[in-house]
Amino acid sequence: MTITGQSLIGAASVPGTNGAFHGIDARTGEALEPAFGGATQQDLERACALAEAAFDIYRETELEARAVFLETIGEQINAIGDALIERCMAETGLPRARIEGERGRTITQLRLFAAVLRNGDCVDARIDPAQPERKPLPRVDLRLRNIALGPVAVFGASNFPLAFSVAGGDTASALAAGCPVIVKAHGAHPGTSELVGRAIQRAVQICGLPEGVFSMLFDSGLAIGQALVADHRIKAVGFTGSRAAGVALLKIANARPEPIPVYAEMSAINPVVLLPGALAARGAAIAQPFTVSLMQGAGQFCTNPGLVLAVRGEPLHAFEQAASAAVANTSAATMLTPGIHANYCMGVERLAANPSVERLASGAAGGRFDAQAALFATTADAFLSQPELRDEVFGPASLIVRCKDLNELHDVLKALEGQLTVAVHLDASDREACRALLPTLERKAGRILANGFGTGVEVGHAMVHGGPFPATSDARTTSVGSRAIERFQRPVSYQDLPDELLPAALRAANPLGLTRRVDGVIDREVREDD
Amino acid sequence: MTITGQSLIGAASVPGTNGAFHGIDARTGEALEPAFGGATQQDLERACALAEAAFDIYRETELEARAVFLETIGEQINAIGDALIERCMAETGLPRARIEGERGRTITQLRLFAAVLRNGDCVDARIDPAQPERKPLPRVDLRLRNIALGPVAVFGASNFPLAFSVAGGDTASALAAGCPVIVKAHGAHPGTSELVGRAIQRAVQICGLPEGVFSMLFDSGLAIGQALVADHRIKAVGFTGSRAAGVALLKIANARPEPIPVYAEMSAINPVVLLPGALAARGAAIAQPFTVSLMQGAGQFCTNPGLVLAVRGEPLHAFEQAASAAVANTSAATMLTPGIHANYCMGVERLAANPSVERLASGAAGGRFDAQAALFATTADAFLSQPELRDEVFGPASLIVRCKDLNELHDVLKALEGQLTVAVHLDASDREACRALLPTLERKAGRILANGFGTGVEVGHAMVHGGPFPATSDARTTSVGSRAIERFQRPVSYQDLPDELLPAALRAANPLGLTRRVDGVIDREVREDD
Repeated sequence: MTITGQSLIGAASVPGTNGAFHGIDARTGEALEPAFGGATQQDLERACALAEAAFDIYRETELEARAVFLETIGEQINAIGDALIERCMAETGLPRARIEGERGRTITQLRLFAAVLRNGDCVDARIDPAQPERKPLPRVDLRLRNIALGPVAVFGASNFPLAFSVAGGDTASALAAGCPVIVKAHGAHPGTSELVGRAIQRAVQICGLPEGVFSMLFDSGLAIGQALVADHRIKAVGFTGSRAAGVALLKIANARPEPIPVYAEMSAINPVVLLPGALAARGAAIAQPFTVSLMQGAGQFCTNPGLVLAVRGEPLHAFEQAASAAVANTSAATMLTPGIHANYCMGVERLAANPSVERLASGAAGGRFDAQAALFATTADAFLSQPELRDEVFGPASLIVRCKDLNELHDVLKALEGQLTVAVHLDASDREACRALLPTLERKAGRILANGFGTGVEVGHAMVHGGPFPATSDARTTSVGSRAIERFQRPVSYQDLPDELLPAALRAANPLGLTRRVDGVIDREVREDD
Repeated sequence: MTITGQSLIGAASVPGTNGAFHGIDARTGEALEPAFGGATQQDLERACALAEAAFDIYRETELEARAVFLETIGEQINAIGDALIERCMAETGLPRARIEGERGRTITQLRLFAAVLRNGDCVDARIDPAQPERKPLPRVDLRLRNIALGPVAVFGASNFPLAFSVAGGDTASALAAGCPVIVKAHGAHPGTSELVGRAIQRAVQICGLPEGVFSMLFDSGLAIGQALVADHRIKAVGFTGSRAAGVALLKIANARPEPIPVYAEMSAINPVVLLPGALAARGAAIAQPFTVSLMQGAGQFCTNPGLVLAVRGEPLHAFEQAASAAVANTSAATMLTPGIHANYCMGVERLAANPSVERLASGAAGGRFDAQAALFATTADAFLSQPELRDEVFGPASLIVRCKDLNELHDVLKALEGQLTVAVHLDASDREACRALLPTLERKAGRILANGFGTGVEVGHAMVHGGPFPATSDARTTSVGSRAIERFQRPVSYQDLPDELLPAALRAANPLGLTRRVDGVIDREVREDD
């Protein structure tokens, strides 16, 4: 399959005339062919008009039809074969096994939303039947379902070029909800984006859906992405990336005549708490999986363990020694882009230059754009008094905060901003200490995990990949797992509508066979039939 | 029960020293005793500190305990007796039957959320069990529940001094979710607010809850309300009122270091569509309930029918004549405040002075602060070309838009901003015309109703009292009905936590007896036990 460098606007390929850029070989920094043409305002206008035209048709497609569409996207991504893996490796510097695994995850995610659609609970069908005899006033017939919000703009992440990009979680959940999607392709993996975008474009065609269900624009600067968020036809935004970029999109969305929700996953340092019992019993052993987690994807995971909290003393010293040895033993790994590499180096230098911070270990150096792992330590005093120590350093760096006791450790947790994850390592003797921390952990993070690390994010029904600001811009939501679909829906109530005018989900005969809530109780209909 | 004019801060009554104001007799414009002291920044600080201190305890109270608390608030409101009715009548100018009915609705609403809590589905407990044998990687144990967002600021409405005020839907749903509430009392009914606030304060004490679960501040200006929204301990805002005030609070919330959700219900003109068959068959008959709906609460309902759309011709003429006669026959009714009355008069004068607008009828004139109903008509051309004709005139005024055909009527609907409700009057012959409009109606409104008017808002499980901007600031939500609770919750995921550290909702033994979702399927546990 040839990469053309063209934007995908509905069923068409459109060469962009608004500047041009190249994908970059992450290892060498050299330009990869072909050039990608930046989309114009006219291209954006056309994509939005098509999405708007597709919306009323697409949002009312049957759940089964949408499920098949999602599965077809997965099949079409698989069908690209090795060309996708190789282009993605070149553009990101990530190894083959990782990219292959991520492709599997992306397809699994599409299948999860297909299952969510077939289950039908996401419609949240509710019926409060009429009570014509009620006094003093008869009760009307009231029925509720969720409908799709409208066309959605998706800004993929650089660090998951498949699972959080063109056909990633935001796109999959928005399409599942019944929203057309316009992707602003990430400039760090444009070839990968085009290949995946074409797979979606083919799936739209195979499934006989309106072409406006999917478009993808290349942007040679920032203007097209910003105009996309500002366009009145766009009704929600999914974003994964830096805090600065996420906040900039939030500002645009809030300044619109009609503000719209922005689901931005932005920044987290994902504290790891080593409680005293676990630390004493197996501090050195914890250092191994900690280092593995730290090095995942060259440290470029949103759930990367950037902060370790423990009470100082001999057991922490043992952990530090083991972790230092493990970190010193790591190989360098190519970062996603020269820009991310430069930022990482600056972040590490800033920590190293801080007189309150001690550098414990560095990994091996490598190629020009390779990250060298770094392990630092500081005191709770310094951490509490220097807010800049809480900033994310995106890459394989972590900071150990030595606390004088569990109370001070708790104070450090309380001082943190919102997080995607917080991990606690505990033994049976740590149960009460953990219990005391839990209310704070719940306030701070979307996911609390025991005796593990946050870098594995299961795609399932009980996953929350989210958390209070600035981990995300909307703590009420998750960008991974089946609840991600809720972000792109809104409820509509129908009062006394004739049965034939009701959406199928709410008709008396329940033609979709949905589990519905009658007077607030799930499945009462079924129980009455029993 | 004596009204003291003091703010309620936790268990205490605090005389405000930051300016003072009086409740106003809506009929006469005269000050009612006593004076209300404006809360100070110190009062605000104390209320926020108490709410913050109460949060972790209150959010983990058992569902049954919170249900009993809500019911106790209802009992305490009832126990105030006639003093509440009389003070509320004086402050609002609303008649006894209306206030008594609204008291009933307020208590019903508290009971609805008690039922929602006892049902337990609002916890959204989900379990994806571990799969230690899964290849290539074992699956972790993942469990999800909703927790409360944090302390909530509530700004009540002037037009529903009980059902949308101190103990109204926002307070009831936030308390149900497990959030402490700080109410900024509405200056238009401060005595009513104090009486109801004291009922909640007593319920907190009776139920043995932390005092910070509820506080209520009087504000002699705007500064305390604004500071409340800006306070870092406040995690969400519920508001019902004008578009200008709602947008101002949104701006404050978005400018915080940690932005928070604002649920503002603001502005709607609630179009009523009269389709040709219904209009021909019973246009004159529809005019009667239309006029009743228009006059509800002196026209001061957020769901007031401010716009009528129909195809011009003899049947519309007959409707206009009947509606004009009915409007001309209406008595004047006291408005809530002199300010609302002045705004209403200006809105009516603006319409009357518009050369494209014809005044069809006026109701009887009355007292100094009484609203005189007004019925206007214009053409679709004028309505489409003059956006100011789409502005809400809060009070008993409505504008008929005469369309040349159904296509033009559809164009008018498409040009509207978001609405709380849209009503369609139809006969069997109108089914296809209605079907053609439905996609637009769904995009524009939170509730679509047939052959009725939106002024009755059922408190139930299938109600959506919400809609796209500017009807509300968040189309994904409702401020009435059981789904209102979702606004004040966020999901948290627990990975591999020891059973004894899990919240009760997620423990293996299911001690709360919740309906849970296992691998995405509701109640599978129960089915496996069968």
